[in-house]
Amino acid sequence: MDLDFSDNYIVRGKFLLKETETEYKGKLTKEEGRELLASEKLKLHQLQEKLYADGSKSLLIVLQAMDAAGKDSLIEHVFGGINPQGCDVTSFKTPSEKEYTHDFLWRHYIALPAKGKIGIFNRSHYESVLVCKVHPEYNLNEKVWKTVDDFDEAFWKKRYESIRNFESHLAENGTTIVKIFLNISKKEQKKRLLDRIEEHDKNWKFSVGDLAERTLWDKYMQVYEEAIKETSKSHAPWFVIPGDDKWFARVAAIQIIIDALEGMKLEFPKLSEEDLKELDGARKQLESE
Amino acid sequence: MDLDFSDNYIVRGKFLLKETETEYKGKLTKEEGRELLASEKLKLHQLQEKLYADGSKSLLIVLQAMDAAGKDSLIEHVFGGINPQGCDVTSFKTPSEKEYTHDFLWRHYIALPAKGKIGIFNRSHYESVLVCKVHPEYNLNEKVWKTVDDFDEAFWKKRYESIRNFESHLAENGTTIVKIFLNISKKEQKKRLLDRIEEHDKNWKFSVGDLAERTLWDKYMQVYEEAIKETSKSHAPWFVIPGDDKWFARVAAIQIIIDALEGMKLEFPKLSEEDLKELDGARKQLESE
Repeated sequence: MDLDFSDNYIVRGKFLLKETETEYKGKLTKEEGRELLASEKLKLHQLQEKLYADGSKSLLIVLQAMDAAGKDSLIEHVFGGINPQGCDVTSFKTPSEKEYTHDFLWRHYIALPAKGKIGIFNRSHYESVLVCKVHPEYNLNEKVWKTVDDFDEAFWKKRYESIRNFESHLAENGTTIVKIFLNISKKEQKKRLLDRIEEHDKNWKFSVGDLAERTLWDKYMQVYEEAIKETSKSHAPWFVIPGDDKWFARVAAIQIIIDALEGMKLEFPKLSEEDLKELDGARKQLESE
Repeated sequence: MDLDFSDNYIVRGKFLLKETETEYKGKLTKEEGRELLASEKLKLHQLQEKLYADGSKSLLIVLQAMDAAGKDSLIEHVFGGINPQGCDVTSFKTPSEKEYTHDFLWRHYIALPAKGKIGIFNRSHYESVLVCKVHPEYNLNEKVWKTVDDFDEAFWKKRYESIRNFESHLAENGTTIVKIFLNISKKEQKKRLLDRIEEHDKNWKFSVGDLAERTLWDKYMQVYEEAIKETSKSHAPWFVIPGDDKWFARVAAIQIIIDALEGMKLEFPKLSEEDLKELDGARKQLESE
């Protein structure tokens, strides 16, 4: 059984969301999946240490999904074992008034991971071509445009272009980018929303707003498909992973991230002759105390 | 054997650093300590979840120590199991030019944990009364003062007062503060610095600057003692924990943090009658789809 799923879900060239799977249909069992996740977490931890030591590159993980798809719990279960000092998670909510006084990339720019670090965007700059495309009136908050008629096809083309250019600039300057769409079915979302309503300790997570968005499911699928198709590039690929089985989504996600880190050719810093001489001097000084 | 160390190292009233222990001398073995740490990590994880759900309070952990005392590895081993989405670590280095254009608390203020989160300061605003007291000329970078003669006793009293007021304001506004000094001996520091020099994969962590600071050890102990004495308050206590045995320092630290979280009286959000009615409506809507 091939246990490496990292390449199965990458989006290249033409892409139709309806041809993707929301359920894992392979042979790996849930129990095997859990064991695999545990061993991959050790690998991730080692790679993160190397990324931190290397100190010249960063990894940006963009995580997008419909409500209740399991973004938060994926972050918890995939990254729960790493060193929090080397990992920054930013959860993007409705923009603040201050954020709206800037362009739509600004708040994401200032949240980018520093060299040596992993940055996770829980929702991201993509919301500007997702929720903002489903509800174009939201863009008026940016004050640049005057009416919703401004949001025509040319407007969205420009947005995708801005995003592509932003990401290609980051890639040029030492940031590896991995974008994951956690792909759940409408049926599975219903089940999870009902769980939130019925299980007392999940109640507080339920938002009535989620229900209103759910009625716009087809529209969301359409904007996701377009955004993914327009922005999946070799230097910033999208991965559309089946999300209905949480345990499997975690395995697929961690393998994609490990693969990205392995591709970064990280190295522990090497000392120069001069550095080594200095070390030798330091040793002598300490020993003679 | 009493396995709760959380109260052993709190600083109250008069305080002499030379009367503290750098080595753990109790009966717990290293193996037992490791097991204890593992079980405490599960507890910490649960409390963090509650802090996040509660969403009305935050926890600030200030971590200070001499070079090579093990701050980074303590963060990794104590917080390695928690949800990175609920934890922000900020490592404070030499201030940038921009940071120097503000007062000494500014950069720490903007790094404070949001409600629902744990914030860890790896070094902190205390450096302004530690390294800056050992090297008073550093304060000139703030541009407010003109000569080192300005840094007299009254100046430092004002600094401590600023820090006390800052922390008491935070405590009043929902932030619980725990300050930990990882207390190592000069002898143990020597050993660790030599390790860094000799072990190839630690080489890159060695900085010749650490050696220069080491020659000022006594002066550092003096400024630590004064800073701790001046700022250990019931709402923002200092804990001086033995640091020579890394495994023990981790146990003591995690217990102190768990104790602080338990004292916060965290609760999962409770829904009002109205909320529950709304939930019921939402369930009906979903079920009738």
